[in-house]
Amino acid sequence: MKSNVYSTRTRAVWSANGHKKTPFLAIENPIDLFYLTGLNLSLGTLLLSAKSAHLFVDGRYLEMAKKKGPFPCSPLGELKDALKNKSFGFDSGFTPFSRWETLKEWGSPVPCKNPTASVRAIKSPEELKCLKESAALLWKGYQYIRKILRTGLTEKEVATSFEIFCLQQGADKMGFDPIIAFGKNSAFPHYRPGNVRLKKGDTVLCDLGVVTSHYHSDMTRTFFFGAPHPQMRLFEEVVQEAHDAALALCRPGVKVGDLDHAATQVIKKAGLEKFLAHSLGHGVGLEIHEFPRLKYKGEDHNTLLQKGMVITIEPGLYAPGIGGYRFEDTIAITAKGYDNWYKVK
Amino acid sequence: MKSNVYSTRTRAVWSANGHKKTPFLAIENPIDLFYLTGLNLSLGTLLLSAKSAHLFVDGRYLEMAKKKGPFPCSPLGELKDALKNKSFGFDSGFTPFSRWETLKEWGSPVPCKNPTASVRAIKSPEELKCLKESAALLWKGYQYIRKILRTGLTEKEVATSFEIFCLQQGADKMGFDPIIAFGKNSAFPHYRPGNVRLKKGDTVLCDLGVVTSHYHSDMTRTFFFGAPHPQMRLFEEVVQEAHDAALALCRPGVKVGDLDHAATQVIKKAGLEKFLAHSLGHGVGLEIHEFPRLKYKGEDHNTLLQKGMVITIEPGLYAPGIGGYRFEDTIAITAKGYDNWYKVK
Repeated sequence: MKSNVYSTRTRAVWSANGHKKTPFLAIENPIDLFYLTGLNLSLGTLLLSAKSAHLFVDGRYLEMAKKKGPFPCSPLGELKDALKNKSFGFDSGFTPFSRWETLKEWGSPVPCKNPTASVRAIKSPEELKCLKESAALLWKGYQYIRKILRTGLTEKEVATSFEIFCLQQGADKMGFDPIIAFGKNSAFPHYRPGNVRLKKGDTVLCDLGVVTSHYHSDMTRTFFFGAPHPQMRLFEEVVQEAHDAALALCRPGVKVGDLDHAATQVIKKAGLEKFLAHSLGHGVGLEIHEFPRLKYKGEDHNTLLQKGMVITIEPGLYAPGIGGYRFEDTIAITAKGYDNWYKVK
Repeated sequence: MKSNVYSTRTRAVWSANGHKKTPFLAIENPIDLFYLTGLNLSLGTLLLSAKSAHLFVDGRYLEMAKKKGPFPCSPLGELKDALKNKSFGFDSGFTPFSRWETLKEWGSPVPCKNPTASVRAIKSPEELKCLKESAALLWKGYQYIRKILRTGLTEKEVATSFEIFCLQQGADKMGFDPIIAFGKNSAFPHYRPGNVRLKKGDTVLCDLGVVTSHYHSDMTRTFFFGAPHPQMRLFEEVVQEAHDAALALCRPGVKVGDLDHAATQVIKKAGLEKFLAHSLGHGVGLEIHEFPRLKYKGEDHNTLLQKGMVITIEPGLYAPGIGGYRFEDTIAITAKGYDNWYKVK
């Protein structure tokens, strides 16, 4: 039963790259290898053809892969012969240049950028269940932060308490280093928690994510611990409006770049575009940042939203020396609209 | 004062790659960017020349990099013009093929594999202090496992308890997903903890590492929870002997490949080579796996041990269906020998 999942996925990846017309496709990204085999491998090659899938792994994984994997396995040392004089697609967005140099000594590698991206972007009902569970656990962790927060605590203490709470609640690990930023530190979009202590009037920015059953959650909330700087109240109002404008477009058939455009238009109308620092969002799944990137005129601009896609909507405004405000939800695209996993502010 | 560290490091990296004779060297690996600037960047380019260093980062990092970075900064969008018609080295071991395609539209990229490896391999006294602190915390975490372990606990419960304990003790995070394997699961070198419960007679393999102040620790211990399978006693004896044989060679001037050879010879003499599954060890530092790899006839075979290098010594033997035994220390090479950070079994 379970190996059917992996056969279906490998066939979908093969079909999605059919236009390349190479007789083989070599998958080497460990996340793709997990998606296509269910195995945790830090290194390995899955060689797909129209009719077969064959896995090559080193001595650390061979026994496990033979026992638990859905496809036939061989030692990694045999890959060279398997590729000899053959034409095969390789993931040019993942494969380092030096690995490509090796591959082309063996056969004829043909660049194929992110060959699994479009397949992985559409989550199955089982994957959606995992993602939703991850989101639910994250929400509990965020509520815990709200409960314990008090003046005098450092950013790092809050981050560590959050992490311990989530592990106790069943998280496998953090999805990324938690961002807890107090006061003007919130103006750095990718801040790392330090020894700054919370004081009255501080802006508090929390960008958090956990992993459960291999799937990531991602959410940002910004709030005020007492009366904030007036600039921050304006940021809050405009970011919320930008967020709503993007959400209003979330349904199958809409271009992802248009979501970023809609949010940015709200911010421009308020005269705040100079406080922008990043695009609107990204796909979420086995990785914290996945295809598609929600960026106006970006590489994925014309990608259409489809049922089963899971994306973040995270507009933000940042005033150096004052503070930043970001509000991020993760949503699933449904047949007619979307399901927001973080309804409450 | 602190920016001197980064100037020294960038000059060392420049010198180490002088034979490439390109007027510029582009560094894009986030770990290298941290090593050379002290900044946490998920994306960016540090452009080195004989006399200068210039950092390019996107909007998420620009304010922070300008405020806290040791070198002048520009928006990432300006990198294209900075590279225009120029010849520059790039890290072919890190740079994806598609990124290389972009770089060669801008200028003339020249492959330069792992340009920081030889510099990062020699740890400064400050780095050694960080690594030793990380090792000390890990040792406490391991002692905690020994204290709490009892029949009926699952591998995952033990892993989570270890993680929470280490975070409470000041670890920033895990260096990798903890490996806790009971019984025959220990035969999988890179096992992930599951819901198997500990029972009398089980082999227990713990491969653990934490991160403190950005530096990794790495250690494996295998022990028996009651009387083990006779094969495991033999593995223990031979692995310990192989470990000692490698340690006996640890001093400046010895080839790293020879350490693996010495350990393997012990194992061959005992007639157990068919139970080998991986090479002897690797460098440790800002990453869990760093240059050099301790592998007989491997790519780094002829690298000479030098004072300040930090490496793992981790022979292991694995019998599918029965169990595995691995014993791993992390050691620092000193002027005349080595310092083992995990003396006690």
